[in-house]
Parts: sequence; C-alpha cells; structure tokens
Amino acid sequence: MANFLTLDSNTLKDFQEKLKVKYEGFKNQNLKLDMSRGKPCPEQLDLSNGLLYSLHGDFKAEDGTDCRNYGGVEGLPEARRLFAACLEVQPEEIIINGNSSLALMHDLIARALLFGVDGHERPWGERPVTFLCPSPGYDRHFALCEFFNIHMIPVKLDQNGPDMEQVEKLVAENESIKGIWCVPRYSNPTGITYSDQVVTRLASMKTKAKDFRIFWDNAYALHHLTEQPDPLKNILQTCKEVGNPDRVYIFSSTSKISFAGAGLAMVASSENNINRLKKQLSIQTIGPDKVNQLSHVRFYKNYQNIQLQMRKHAAIIRPKFSLVLNILQSELGNKNIATWSKPNGGYFISLNTMEGCAKRVVQMAAEAGVILTKAGATFPYGKDPYDQNIRIAPTYPPLNELKTAMELVTICLQQASIEKILRERTIWEHEVKEAQIV
Amino acid sequence: MANFLTLDSNTLKDFQEKLKVKYEGFKNQNLKLDMSRGKPCPEQLDLSNGLLYSLHGDFKAEDGTDCRNYGGVEGLPEARRLFAACLEVQPEEIIINGNSSLALMHDLIARALLFGVDGHERPWGERPVTFLCPSPGYDRHFALCEFFNIHMIPVKLDQNGPDMEQVEKLVAENESIKGIWCVPRYSNPTGITYSDQVVTRLASMKTKAKDFRIFWDNAYALHHLTEQPDPLKNILQTCKEVGNPDRVYIFSSTSKISFAGAGLAMVASSENNINRLKKQLSIQTIGPDKVNQLSHVRFYKNYQNIQLQMRKHAAIIRPKFSLVLNILQSELGNKNIATWSKPNGGYFISLNTMEGCAKRVVQMAAEAGVILTKAGATFPYGKDPYDQNIRIAPTYPPLNELKTAMELVTICLQQASIEKILRERTIWEHEVKEAQIV
Repeated sequence: MANFLTLDSNTLKDFQEKLKVKYEGFKNQNLKLDMSRGKPCPEQLDLSNGLLYSLHGDFKAEDGTDCRNYGGVEGLPEARRLFAACLEVQPEEIIINGNSSLALMHDLIARALLFGVDGHERPWGERPVTFLCPSPGYDRHFALCEFFNIHMIPVKLDQNGPDMEQVEKLVAENESIKGIWCVPRYSNPTGITYSDQVVTRLASMKTKAKDFRIFWDNAYALHHLTEQPDPLKNILQTCKEVGNPDRVYIFSSTSKISFAGAGLAMVASSENNINRLKKQLSIQTIGPDKVNQLSHVRFYKNYQNIQLQMRKHAAIIRPKFSLVLNILQSELGNKNIATWSKPNGGYFISLNTMEGCAKRVVQMAAEAGVILTKAGATFPYGKDPYDQNIRIAPTYPPLNELKTAMELVTICLQQASIEKILRERTIWEHEVKEAQIV
Repeated sequence: MANFLTLDSNTLKDFQEKLKVKYEGFKNQNLKLDMSRGKPCPEQLDLSNGLLYSLHGDFKAEDGTDCRNYGGVEGLPEARRLFAACLEVQPEEIIINGNSSLALMHDLIARALLFGVDGHERPWGERPVTFLCPSPGYDRHFALCEFFNIHMIPVKLDQNGPDMEQVEKLVAENESIKGIWCVPRYSNPTGITYSDQVVTRLASMKTKAKDFRIFWDNAYALHHLTEQPDPLKNILQTCKEVGNPDRVYIFSSTSKISFAGAGLAMVASSENNINRLKKQLSIQTIGPDKVNQLSHVRFYKNYQNIQLQMRKHAAIIRPKFSLVLNILQSELGNKNIATWSKPNGGYFISLNTMEGCAKRVVQMAAEAGVILTKAGATFPYGKDPYDQNIRIAPTYPPLNELKTAMELVTICLQQASIEKILRERTIWEHEVKEAQIV
C-alpha cells in the first residue's frame, strides 16, 4: 500500500475490510500480552543471578563494616566509588541507597515542600510550585507532581532535548517554577539524548527562583543498544563551571542493570547538597541495605564489568528493538500515517500516530488482548494534546509474542488511521456540499 | 559498702580515692568500646546467614511473580501472611517493605504533614502539631519529631506504660496533639510492656483531634529474653472493638531478627489505612526488594521457625543481660545510688542514677574509652529533666568487653554519686553555718 492520504476512499475501504478480518483473527487467538511497562525480561535478570552468590559468607566491607549490621547512611565506600565512576562524579558526591531511585526523587520533593532545598530559601510548599515537564516524558515523574499538587507545564521535547527557548523564557519569568524533569540519555519514551548545548543552557540559564533544581533522571546512563553510545555532557561538572554547583540532582539505579526493585538506587549532586541530604537521610533511616550493596560491588567489581554486563543486556534486547522497527517499517512505512523513534539505547520506542488516533489504537489493541501503555500517559495529567503518542516497550516479551503484538498494533493503527481519514473526508465532502448549496 | 547516703563524708572520701585509682587503671587500658546503640552482635547475625542461600536459583513467588522484576508495592503475599501472623493482624492489614521501619514512620509523618492522615481532615502541617512522648523513650522517634518541627510533650512512663491519666487529659483538651509514640513491648529503654488496661485506654480514649494516631513501634514484638514473654494486648483488634479502627499504625522490622538494615520492615493498620498507604506508596516506588522478601520467607518458612530463631537470639544475648545485671547488683546494690530495669526482652537496660549524675557518668566513661548512649537522649529534645537516665545496650560487645565496660560504668557512677553527695553536704553545712551566724 502507498501513502494512505493519497488513496481514494474506496481503496481505503477495501483495505479496511481486509484489516478487519486480520484483526478478528487476532481477537480469536485470545491473546494476553502486557507491553505496558519497560521491564527487563527473565534472560536479562538471569545475567545477575550471580549477585546472590558473590559474598561467600564474607560480609565485611573494605573499611571493616559488617554489612549485616546498622549504619552507613551514605552507602558503602566501595559502592560509592563504583557508581561515582559510572555517573562521572566524585565518591563524595553520591549516596547509594536501596530500591528505588523513584523513592529518592519522591522523598527529595517531599522534603523540599516541607523544608526547602537548601536551608536558606523557604519551603516550596508555602506557595504554589510548578515543574517544567519536557513531553513526551516519564509518566511516573508526572504522577509524582500530581501527587504533591505540583503544577506541570509541558515543554516541547525535540531531538536535542527540551525546547530551550521555551524553558529559558519560563524559568526567567516565573518564580513558582522550582524544577524540571529530565531523562537526559535515551529519554523515556522518545529515546533522544540531550545535546551538549542543551546541557550547558540548562546548567547556566537564569532562573527567577533561586531554589530551582534540575531533576536529572539518568535512568539509562549505561543502557546503550549500539557500540556508538550517544554522548552526554556531564551536567554536574557543567553546573559547577557556570557557577550553579547546587542546581542538579542526578538519579540512577541498577534496576535495569541487576534486578528491578532489588537493586541499588543512587543520587548524585554537589558535595554541599549531598551533605545536607545525608543529614536528612540519617533521620529517615539508620542505614541502607549494605548486604545488597556489597553483593553488587563483589559481583561487578568495577565499571568495566558493568559495561560488559550492559553489552550482554543489549545483546538480549537489541533483536527485540530490531523486530519492532522492522515490523513498523514493513507495515507502516510509506503509508504516511505514523512516525517512530529509532533509539540508540533505553527501553522504549516512541510511536506517533496521526493526530487523534493514539487512544483508539491502544483501545483496539487492548480489546484484542495486548495491553500497551495508556495513551496520554507520556504527558502531564495524562493529556496528550494531539492524542498521537504511543510508548512501545519491547524488552519484556519473548520475540514471538512481541511479533504478534506488534503486528496487531500496526493493524490497529492502520484501521484507526483509515477511520480518521474517511471520517474527515466525509466531513469535508459535507462541507463542500454545504458551500455549494449556499 | 553500705548505703552511701548514710556513710560519713570521710568514709566516702576514702572510698572516692580508691575509685579514682581504679578509674585511672581503666584509663590506662586505652579502651575503645562503643555501647551507644542497640545493635545485634556478630553471633546473632550469623544465625541468619542462611538467608542468602535460601533461594536456590528459584525467584518465583507463590503467585508466579518473578521477584527480580518490578511490582508488588504491598509486598509478597507469602511475606504478608508470615508477618501478619507474627504481629497478630490479617494479611490485608500489613504492608511488607524493605529497610526500614524508621523510614516507614518518617514517610507516614511526612505524608500526614502534607496531606493529612485520612483524606478528610486537613494536612497536619497547616497548623502546629504536637506528639506525646512517653519518656524515657526511643531517641530516633524524638529526632523525627524535631526534624519535622513537631512539638513534643513528655509523658511519664511507668511499669504499665504511659501515665494514662496524663495522656487522656492532654488528648481530650488539645486538638494539636496528633500522635503518641509507643514502644509497647520491652520498651526502649525501660523494658516495660504496656498493660492490657493501658492498651484499652489508648485505643478508646476521646481525642479532640479526629485525626489522632498512635505510632505503635512494636520493634521488640518477638524479642523475648525468657520463656515467659510479657503478654501484650492486640491494639489493632482493640481499636476495632472500641470503634476507632483507623487509630493505630503498627511498625516492626526484622532488623533484630535477620539483618539490621538488610532485613524487612512492615507497617500494619486497618485495611482502610493500608489501602490508602498502598496508593501513596505506589507513587513513591514501583515495588520493594522482593528478592529479599522471598529469601526471608524461604528461610523462615513460618512463624514457629521465627520464634525458634528468637530463642537462639535470646540464648546469645541473655548471658550479656545477666552479666550487666550481676555487675550492677554486686557493685551498686544496697548503695542507694542507682536503680535499674530487669527486662524480660528487648535490647536495653535502663539505669537511673541519683538526680543530676547521668551526664557526668557518661562523660567519665567516655573519657576512659567507653561510649554510652548520650545522657538525655532518651528524652524529647535530649533533655532529661532529672539528668538521671542512662541507656545500657548490652547486646553488641563480647562478654569480656561488656564486663570491662560495666565495671567502668559502675565506678564512674559511684564517683559521680559521691561527688554529688559531698557537694550537697558542703552546701548544706554551709547553709547550717550561715543559719547559726544569723
């Protein structure tokens, strides 16, 4: 089939019938596939089973700490060193926690609302708070804002990161803007990586709020799919260089390196911010799960081995990304009804339908037994202004299920597109007739 | 020696000289003993090493959940069942989390300040908040209140629990009182267990604040030292019976069952409260460390085995408690300068000096190389009104070190007592002379 937009309506209707037959065929399979979340698959998890056998009954950290006992709120020294290397910060600039990085973000925001971010400015919660939300973005970030009654302003996200013209204008004018959500590498869901220029501008832009913070969720810091990773400029270093050393909190975790939810989470920032956070954390807990930290350090040993592990992850999930991209290309290519991302890393493919079709596609897929991420979820308040973004999460299902699911998705998408085209033509023809009558 | 208070000053001074010599002897040993916290000792931790070898490569929970992957914010069903049995609640009434119970308390308070406790009442943080603090109590509870700017009112704690006359009067009159801290079994540090009557009165008392909550930190729920555990009335059940089903949050953890900080923490409450908390937790984290939960369930299997484990713990630490009590009795008995608790469980012995001597004792011990819990720490704001309570934590040091440390403590305590007695006699004699002159 060629460009749907240039096909005559009868041809489209004929094709629609064929799609309907195929769709019914899928329905009759009673599928039950869940592609809603970016979860590692069992083969990926198997890569880290050795974690559980890495201690050999020796629970002593390098400084003599018995990891089975209380204490050490900032994390084990060797764990701080290892993940400082991964995130390109200094060991004094990072805190290693247990599960999860989302909890670290949640708790930082809760504390900011109650106490402010730096001990000098007022608690955020005393006045309305706004966050900038480059979109499409990560639904759980937006859920955090909704939970904490933080107003969200969507910001356009392009190939280089957030639209910095828009961002700079907003933060310069509006003191209520206290933060911005960023997934700077292999962005969830679009897969883009922030350009050096965007990083520099984020670090150096003038903000009306002195207590403005960048929430830098580097969830996919090491999650490359190719041997040519997208480069990402060091934001903490840049913030220091431009004189805003305390502006950024960097988050990451091993949820998609070792075990999801049973790994380690971390926050990196200026030593100033980290020392303040350490004091606050010491009120919340006597210390993190150091046994798990020691297991991770003993298992991975160094940054090189973690990179090696990430190559093994990539080897498992790369064929899944390829499969999705191939099906999208073969079924939707040249039809002018969809565009999609071709990411170099991360966990998602971002699929854009014609305007007003995403909800319909997700609904049709669900009715045939394939659960996709809720349409709109990638936008603040769940509202995609053009109802066109669908997040595809290829990593979890086995290849055969993924193939079935994606074939179904392309059938749903084509059906929704034809419905839309025919509907609009009817309206247009009706309008032409009306005009002729007048 | 006999009752110090009846000895003449010269006898006391002679004895003081002997104590000084002994004290210098300790100083010359260059001791470095830390008895400041209630930590399990390595032999206790060894009891649970098998935890790490309990999975045998099988990560599937009973409902098929792969524990290495995301999800299950309320905890594994089998973990909920196991610890529901331990805490005498229903599985639907408990959430199993990772480390730590302190974090669960911290986060509950943070949410109460921001959102209120039940979705109907206003956020606590909109007006001044007060907690009742039965004292002596747990310093980390008081630190949480200080951190969150929650005003603390100390309440007398006797052999049966908090002074309920005082508690009932305060909560009936003062709407700002939103909570009370309770360590109901083997109280930290006095070792007492709340009587049935106190539990009933706490559950049923009239509170001016509709959103009043009991923070029931049952940290030592299973931590008996004898085969005749102190009975404790079921507070959740009682709250239901008297028509205040949502009044109590029960906290506990396996920090002193399996590994401290690398165990599990839990909160139990009415199903209503638990369902609300589940929703809130799902914003904070995608799920807890379920691998560790599964390890615990596979290792302990059932409540009976946990009780068996607790008997092994008791067997290790009972001799330490006995040693401390024997030294206190042999060195201080009949001298009328100190009293102390003889707990049936928990982690502490509470030592009361003569008024105004605790700080001095802790300071002298520190100067000779033995770190005790800071004097005053067991009271809100670190202020012991009579400067007499010292918390002894016998579990961590080996017996020989504990013996040395306690001998030193009794020497310091006798010195501080004699200093006080002689000082007061001097003042008294001076006053008598003054009176005679007049």
